[in-house]
Amino acid sequence: MPSLRDVTIVNLFYENSTRTRISFELAEKRLSADTINFTASGSSVSKGETLLDTVNNILSMKVDMVVMRHSASGAPHFLSQHIPAAIVNAGDGVNEHPTQGLLDAFSIREKVGKLAGTKVAIIGDITHSRVAMSNMYLLKKMGAEVTLCGPPTLIPKYAREAFGVNVSYNLEETLNWCDVANVLHIQLERQNQVLFSSLREYNLSYGISRKLLEGLKKDVVIMHPGPINRGVELDSDVADSGQSIILQQVENGVAVRMAVLYLLSNKNN
Amino acid sequence: MPSLRDVTIVNLFYENSTRTRISFELAEKRLSADTINFTASGSSVSKGETLLDTVNNILSMKVDMVVMRHSASGAPHFLSQHIPAAIVNAGDGVNEHPTQGLLDAFSIREKVGKLAGTKVAIIGDITHSRVAMSNMYLLKKMGAEVTLCGPPTLIPKYAREAFGVNVSYNLEETLNWCDVANVLHIQLERQNQVLFSSLREYNLSYGISRKLLEGLKKDVVIMHPGPINRGVELDSDVADSGQSIILQQVENGVAVRMAVLYLLSNKNN
Amino acid sequence: MPSLRDVTIVNLFYENSTRTRISFELAEKRLSADTINFTASGSSVSKGETLLDTVNNILSMKVDMVVMRHSASGAPHFLSQHIPAAIVNAGDGVNEHPTQGLLDAFSIREKVGKLAGTKVAIIGDITHSRVAMSNMYLLKKMGAEVTLCGPPTLIPKYAREAFGVNVSYNLEETLNWCDVANVLHIQLERQNQVLFSSLREYNLSYGISRKLLEGLKKDVVIMHPGPINRGVELDSDVADSGQSIILQQVENGVAVRMAVLYLLSNKNN
Repeated sequence: MPSLRDVTIVNLFYENSTRTRISFELAEKRLSADTINFTASGSSVSKGETLLDTVNNILSMKVDMVVMRHSASGAPHFLSQHIPAAIVNAGDGVNEHPTQGLLDAFSIREKVGKLAGTKVAIIGDITHSRVAMSNMYLLKKMGAEVTLCGPPTLIPKYAREAFGVNVSYNLEETLNWCDVANVLHIQLERQNQVLFSSLREYNLSYGISRKLLEGLKKDVVIMHPGPINRGVELDSDVADSGQSIILQQVENGVAVRMAVLYLLSNKNN
Repeated sequence: MPSLRDVTIVNLFYENSTRTRISFELAEKRLSADTINFTASGSSVSKGETLLDTVNNILSMKVDMVVMRHSASGAPHFLSQHIPAAIVNAGDGVNEHPTQGLLDAFSIREKVGKLAGTKVAIIGDITHSRVAMSNMYLLKKMGAEVTLCGPPTLIPKYAREAFGVNVSYNLEETLNWCDVANVLHIQLERQNQVLFSSLREYNLSYGISRKLLEGLKKDVVIMHPGPINRGVELDSDVADSGQSIILQQVENGVAVRMAVLYLLSNKNN
Repeated sequence: MPSLRDVTIVNLFYENSTRTRISFELAEKRLSADTINFTASGSSVSKGETLLDTVNNILSMKVDMVVMRHSASGAPHFLSQHIPAAIVNAGDGVNEHPTQGLLDAFSIREKVGKLAGTKVAIIGDITHSRVAMSNMYLLKKMGAEVTLCGPPTLIPKYAREAFGVNVSYNLEETLNWCDVANVLHIQLERQNQVLFSSLREYNLSYGISRKLLEGLKKDVVIMHPGPINRGVELDSDVADSGQSIILQQVENGVAVRMAVLYLLSNKNN
């Protein structure tokens, strides 16, 4: 599909990524864009250059779009205020991961048939999850009902009022309520303090097992943005079961990112 | 040559590599495949994801083939049992390096004219060499005679019976016997124990010098999979001599890998 | 522009780089060359292979050109003596950065209208700057007048005689003399000894502020090869002012590198 022929896109990844980087790169190549990869190691980051200077430099080389992952919340938004090119946020700190939100919503609609009125539980470490944030915003906008579920230490106190969602600390109750469970990766690397006593304890209270699912009144759709910690937030036989749409999410991710790149490139042409 | 147009190949390198990675990437590009590079640093490896999940995720993005190097012996075989796509082994632990075996056999046939009956010596650290293993299997299958030569500490005790090869601890005898000497890289990084007392001692007993070659009854073809430790396993004037086909091996490597990728892609189309 | 279709170029970067690597890669892709990227991490460098062997191996894979950055001064020159392919120096140690020299000269001619007779000041750490060296050689050859300006500890004693340039330790005098000020990046990572007492002191004596520029008799063109240490060698309002052509330099860099690659490829076809 040569829709982005002669469009140059830089993938600017200041944080490690496997699936998101490859997903964007495939989306770009399938649209026939020229792609340049840049990762923080092997860069000018250590030479004292500002982020704005780095990006302005790259854009001066006639680059049309920047896909960017950064550990600082707000970095892509800041850039988009100062730069005429399209900036695609591929995840910024603990803030947002918009294309993940879009692919999750797309996957739910594909599986359930609609978003409006669908009951979606987001389970795990809400506080440190940009996936949770982007899911909440988009699902609420599309008319879904959202419940956040996890240990009290991992759900922001202000969540209920700020986002218009339900909050539950009881996994079984939540699973009995929802149509879809979006189970988050436990991001140990994000945590600066001990928010639960052990992975084993987390698994006992908030991990989803086959046994737990079999006790429910209906089949819940299982989602996960990856990477999965098998045996922590999700047992293997759940991740690989017919209820899981985890690999469909990955497949949809490329299509959704192709759509995002195509639409944003039109805006700037 | 647009034979692999619209075929997407991921190069998944969990171990450092220069020549093999570049050789595969060139082979892919010369067949017009779309290529994605992935190296272990900058990956989800540290986030607790299983190898099978990583590869399944990549394949869900409509990737057709995976070229993979991994430090764990058997990793590509394990994947090929669980995954519908073609997995090309680009070197796994101390197990095998099949495309190196193929390019070595091709290079011998190109130089000597045939493989059946050709006398090939494999010299050096046999125990830790996936190159030696892949060479032995293929050369024996094609009817060549094989002698392993090196210090007793670097040749498996079971080699003679297990592989139907000769074993010699005497370099000069071996060189007087063989048509072709495939000299292995001394892989210091592979060894967990002291298997010889020094590089200098190794060179004195098993390094190939011009003087040694001039004392032989015939011209022996010199091969090396690279990277060469000049002055250790091979002296510089031997590596660069007319008897050496080391750079032809590298050249043939791209062609052989193009053939492998082309044949495996057909199987999966 | 398919001028380099079927030409394969390897970008061999043994030192970190953002703008130069991306600039070359864009230049190559806009000429439709096939590109392979290689960085020192993830390489055979640690396996004891010589630089000549690495490059000979790559060239044996039918690679047409090598773009190379290396921390050792003279490394590309050494290779070009031993190798039939075109080697493009993308910066070698404290020696030269020829394409930066070309893009700087091009940018001056574009802005000022001519090089002959134009007064160019090169300001900062001359001793450790390959940008300064390549600028001096080219500007002198094209008939420009050159003054080096910086603290005595950062200008070679032999500069005046060796290069036929002026030397000044007074920034204001130099700025009053010149048409163009090419301000160098303070490369702290290059210095093995303390050559000035602090960045603050450096800024007070040799940093360029708006106030300083407003006190001059004419508008001086401001250049910088990047990355900029804002507030050290250049204040922000100077870097972003209408007198600055820093982003034009970056834009011209891609065009100049396209020209270099195109001309060198013809030589080797």
